[in-house]
Amino acid sequence: MSTLTSLTNHQVRLASRPVGLPTRDNWSFTSEPVTEPAEGGVLVKTLALSLDPAMRGWMNEGKSYIAPVGIGEVMRAGGVGKVVASNNPGFAVGDMVSATLGVQEYALVPGDQVRRSGMFKIDLRAGSATQWLNVLGMPGMTGYFGLMDVGQPKPGDTLVVSGAAGAVGQTVGQMAKIKGCRVVGIAGGRAKCDWVVNELGFDACIDYKAGNVKAGLKEHCPKGVDIYFDNVGGEILDDVLARIARGARIIICGAISQYNNTTPVQGPKNYLSLLVNRARMEGIVVFDYADRYPQAIAEMAGYLKDGRMKSKEDVVKGLQTFPETLIKLFAGANFGKLVLQVSE
Amino acid sequence: MSTLTSLTNHQVRLASRPVGLPTRDNWSFTSEPVTEPAEGGVLVKTLALSLDPAMRGWMNEGKSYIAPVGIGEVMRAGGVGKVVASNNPGFAVGDMVSATLGVQEYALVPGDQVRRSGMFKIDLRAGSATQWLNVLGMPGMTGYFGLMDVGQPKPGDTLVVSGAAGAVGQTVGQMAKIKGCRVVGIAGGRAKCDWVVNELGFDACIDYKAGNVKAGLKEHCPKGVDIYFDNVGGEILDDVLARIARGARIIICGAISQYNNTTPVQGPKNYLSLLVNRARMEGIVVFDYADRYPQAIAEMAGYLKDGRMKSKEDVVKGLQTFPETLIKLFAGANFGKLVLQVSE
Repeated sequence: MSTLTSLTNHQVRLASRPVGLPTRDNWSFTSEPVTEPAEGGVLVKTLALSLDPAMRGWMNEGKSYIAPVGIGEVMRAGGVGKVVASNNPGFAVGDMVSATLGVQEYALVPGDQVRRSGMFKIDLRAGSATQWLNVLGMPGMTGYFGLMDVGQPKPGDTLVVSGAAGAVGQTVGQMAKIKGCRVVGIAGGRAKCDWVVNELGFDACIDYKAGNVKAGLKEHCPKGVDIYFDNVGGEILDDVLARIARGARIIICGAISQYNNTTPVQGPKNYLSLLVNRARMEGIVVFDYADRYPQAIAEMAGYLKDGRMKSKEDVVKGLQTFPETLIKLFAGANFGKLVLQVSE
Repeated sequence: MSTLTSLTNHQVRLASRPVGLPTRDNWSFTSEPVTEPAEGGVLVKTLALSLDPAMRGWMNEGKSYIAPVGIGEVMRAGGVGKVVASNNPGFAVGDMVSATLGVQEYALVPGDQVRRSGMFKIDLRAGSATQWLNVLGMPGMTGYFGLMDVGQPKPGDTLVVSGAAGAVGQTVGQMAKIKGCRVVGIAGGRAKCDWVVNELGFDACIDYKAGNVKAGLKEHCPKGVDIYFDNVGGEILDDVLARIARGARIIICGAISQYNNTTPVQGPKNYLSLLVNRARMEGIVVFDYADRYPQAIAEMAGYLKDGRMKSKEDVVKGLQTFPETLIKLFAGANFGKLVLQVSE
């Protein structure tokens, strides 16, 4: 393993907590020598990292569903990579794995973290490395369990999903079609809307950048909205609340419109529609479903294979581009799941 | 029945839709002769009427869980009264009944409405006439089913209820104590707070008029809030959202702080706490549980009898006082369930 120690690991660390949109000044670029894994540990060469809206929350101080990233720490990120050294009987050199790798070229994952953060082998016959960050990864799991467990889709239900062309949105919409729902997406721009309708088979898609979401919902959801999978919050959440059907289920998965606010979060002023319609609004955190990932992945891999599900990634190359690439998410400039490719 | 036709029925009708708090100008006082019930109908002499926050919503135009009261119509109100004439085999002169009577001295309830609005006989051995408008009536049913079905209380859970001294609040808190919860009320003023703690057995009560609800929640809910039964909305809902525990259930029963707004409803800006805590916010409308009222009433009557539940009403006399008496609700000036006594 003497070759390892001659390698350099380039990293992106959180230098300061952003106010509003993160800028390049919030990051520091460091490098350090690669070291050997201790007992139980695994050294992984990063192939690709998942860039997610949730990262914005991890940059804030304060209690959330997961501890914030500390100042000076390597930024947290899930990713896929190849095992280049192992001191753990469960993993061999050459294995492809998915794990919390961080924004760096080499992740030295200690033994307790291998267990705790759920490092697992991925099978590239089931899906490509980037698909393992998308439909077969955390966004796919989030969409799957949010829809199935909280949304409880029934054939004939009308489902609306915001961020429809994003990583979670594309999974939710396609799964809902498979379960027999009428599916209406909300996305920014004609290209994304055309794609979810023509390529993914959504029944309709409302371009929120083109204007009137309210009118679009009225047109495409004449019987009201039975399930709303919310990735964005803000005005769009209010517009959907005004159209929910009796007994509707609203899955609160995220609120990307609010994450970079420097003013307080905008609360849904139409929340009393929950009362009138005996409806439910419920939050979901994907990690709670870790025990059931394998069965969900197997189901999704089947849909990928038989063509009932497609998976689109927006791949940007180069660790150094991380600050600007992350911003694409908040500008809605990504088209499909945003992935940072770190090595070939 | 010739004596009936010599009687005069005094009524309160909706004259115009209020903007903000209703005033006396929004009402008209009318009188008309009492008439005999047609086939299937029942004539009821009103004893007492239930005054409820929901009445404010019925005065607005537009879709809700129930049709608005039309301009010129007798104001809708639930009440208890005595049958004075009957053309329906199910009801006899002298029966005490609960029904939607309206704000008037005599309610001529036609046959289809006897069935549809669920007129039923009340047994004064189970509770007094005013208790049949409180713990044994709609507020009691609302509290019972909201708590049991949506709240799903478990022994050891911490429950918070706003409007704690009100009709729904007193039922919710006492039922939650019976189910083994730690119960913290929120009410306006020392007298109400002392009463729910000393008379109803709540574990604590936060006086929102005295100041810091946040600090009170922190002190009295050290492990967070598992169930929040919300009757008020506004800032208090936000303060509780900031303290909910993992897996919390929030029952949206009403939002009295927002009903007289002339500006948009204030949405809960802390709603993303639902995501962080995998929590649920759900609306309830009591009419959905009509099939199960008898069993709930029987259970509550048992608790009244054995002293585990108390029922407090704030009784105001005289049909003519209706406009000002209703306002007491929105000022929080009632102490216990607000009842308008129309006759002896």
